[in-house]
Amino acid sequence: MKLDPWGVSDIKDYTRLYKEFGLSPLDEALVTKMRDNRYVRRGMVFGHRDLQKFLEAASSGEEAAVMSGIKPTGVFHLGSKVTAEQMIYFQRIGPKITVFYSIADLEAYADNGIPLSESSETAIINVADILTLGLDPGRAVVYKQSDALAVQDMAFVFSRDVTLNMLRAIYGERPPGLYLSALVQVGDILLPQTKLFGGPKPVLVPVGADQDPHIRLTRDIASKHRTDMGFLEPSSVYHKLVRSLKGDLKMSKRDPYSMITLSDDPDEVKKKIADAFTGGRPTIKEQRELGGEPQKCPVYELYLYHFVEDDDFVSRVYNECINGERICSDCKKEIAEMVASFLKDHQHRRKGNMYKAERMLEEGSELVRRKPF
Amino acid sequence: MKLDPWGVSDIKDYTRLYKEFGLSPLDEALVTKMRDNRYVRRGMVFGHRDLQKFLEAASSGEEAAVMSGIKPTGVFHLGSKVTAEQMIYFQRIGPKITVFYSIADLEAYADNGIPLSESSETAIINVADILTLGLDPGRAVVYKQSDALAVQDMAFVFSRDVTLNMLRAIYGERPPGLYLSALVQVGDILLPQTKLFGGPKPVLVPVGADQDPHIRLTRDIASKHRTDMGFLEPSSVYHKLVRSLKGDLKMSKRDPYSMITLSDDPDEVKKKIADAFTGGRPTIKEQRELGGEPQKCPVYELYLYHFVEDDDFVSRVYNECINGERICSDCKKEIAEMVASFLKDHQHRRKGNMYKAERMLEEGSELVRRKPF
Repeated sequence: MKLDPWGVSDIKDYTRLYKEFGLSPLDEALVTKMRDNRYVRRGMVFGHRDLQKFLEAASSGEEAAVMSGIKPTGVFHLGSKVTAEQMIYFQRIGPKITVFYSIADLEAYADNGIPLSESSETAIINVADILTLGLDPGRAVVYKQSDALAVQDMAFVFSRDVTLNMLRAIYGERPPGLYLSALVQVGDILLPQTKLFGGPKPVLVPVGADQDPHIRLTRDIASKHRTDMGFLEPSSVYHKLVRSLKGDLKMSKRDPYSMITLSDDPDEVKKKIADAFTGGRPTIKEQRELGGEPQKCPVYELYLYHFVEDDDFVSRVYNECINGERICSDCKKEIAEMVASFLKDHQHRRKGNMYKAERMLEEGSELVRRKPF
Repeated sequence: MKLDPWGVSDIKDYTRLYKEFGLSPLDEALVTKMRDNRYVRRGMVFGHRDLQKFLEAASSGEEAAVMSGIKPTGVFHLGSKVTAEQMIYFQRIGPKITVFYSIADLEAYADNGIPLSESSETAIINVADILTLGLDPGRAVVYKQSDALAVQDMAFVFSRDVTLNMLRAIYGERPPGLYLSALVQVGDILLPQTKLFGGPKPVLVPVGADQDPHIRLTRDIASKHRTDMGFLEPSSVYHKLVRSLKGDLKMSKRDPYSMITLSDDPDEVKKKIADAFTGGRPTIKEQRELGGEPQKCPVYELYLYHFVEDDDFVSRVYNECINGERICSDCKKEIAEMVASFLKDHQHRRKGNMYKAERMLEEGSELVRRKPF
């Protein structure tokens, strides 16, 4: 199996990642501890590395950090929303946890050719999105990679720790710009542990499963600098990739009808959902007889993972579906209303956060425009 | 033939570079125009790319820049002195010429593992050296790569313009850190043409012959950004590598007895010269009969290139040598006195420039800690 942080990863069975890449499953104790995290108790979050290290620091009130990032190639979609909500969840889990959020504009250029000036505008909306979802701005550092001298210096320093063969083994044969992106991302992930931010500490990185190559590279490099820089290997927690509305394994930013974004027009989104692939049967008659197949249904996933907090509600939808009591158009109509109303509210509140987002980005970028060591 | 900016280049015949890499020889018109440049009229400077473009801008009073750099792996040696004096010469050739001098501390780390903190101290001495040699600080920007957000952002942007195969073709198979160094150097060379410094302009890069790979890469990348960024391809002017005192083709920083540095103790330097390889014959008797071979003599090169401005003096040394009228010990004693006295004076004046050097570095580093575009 191949995990591709820049393309489409072919993950049919997430449990294979435990064995192939050394991720740990979330055991019952962990799930119980984090039952209030919808993504955890519903199985969207499926694995981790060293999560305990972070949780212990958090619960004993020590300094720790949550770090993740976004490539500003477009507006938040449900995948970015999962990452953002995970960051917010883990920000609240202890009294001294700082969130670091990197706007990967350098990567957006290297991978997608998006000019830094264009990223700059998208970035503000991205930050307004995460604020609106509930990020505590008082304990967050938000910055653009292109401002982050600290991160770029680290990319350079860490370039000495890798060989082309190592990079090839982790990422496959790639253009130099993507290898460089990977090193910059190592810098992003280790930034919270630099002198600039108070030195070594437990750091948790919530990411989609396809980003694990960056985690592996970072943990390898961190371990090489345990002595001279005191780095701890960062912890990580993984969520499944958001399935395309068309039924493919991963939505694609290239096809707007494959995904819901937080900037979608609420009416438009109803049409997207109406057109979505489902786990339904060829005819209503068959569906009444056999029941639907929610386990392969992206519309059911909107209930299961994204928009319904109440477990009983989700169970009811599931049961009614497999018993043939509800058909696809029932689900589509119901969830479309919920999504549209979420979007309307979110977009309204987001507008009020735009100015704050811009200021946070300026402040954060100023902070990281310094040397890391 | 292979040019290796990070190792030992095997250049026996500089004229081969014209054909193999497309360097132009300095024609008579150019040499006549620059007769007041000792390195030019004595043949130490042997080639260029597009030098006219820079000279025309300089003589018509237009804005232009001279750019070069040093890897702060140690104190100035005669090779760094040649580069520095070339920069100073070309700074004075027109009224609106700014010098950009990059302290390549990121490369010193990637190539030699020298920590940035250590480079930082060496850098101050390096800048004091170039000031003492005559740089006009009022028209100079001196900075460290690790401070240069502008340069690092560009390295990233330009990484999109290269493939691993291109880098391999130019530099051979290298660790990722050196490829990254090369991209950072492209950023250094194009920095004077960014918006931050007033936009596109003719830029001249004086370098040792072994640095031509960086020039080729930069010219290639500049030409790709002619439309969107307006970059002109930088011009370059090449000097021969300084021969080792032991007679090898290039001195080595690893062997202090192979080279003279501007921080050498004046008495120590006399001993270095006394121990040097020469173009002399096995016995004094033979030398009196056959004459010496100045063309293979590193001691003669101290006269020819480095420490004697007066052409007649050099001619006399040459003629006396080939006629057997002066033997190696005559030369060694004479030039050792001259070098020792130069060093004494230089080191005395350099002391007075240390504070200024430190301040220039701070100011320059502050200037480049901004975005390039």
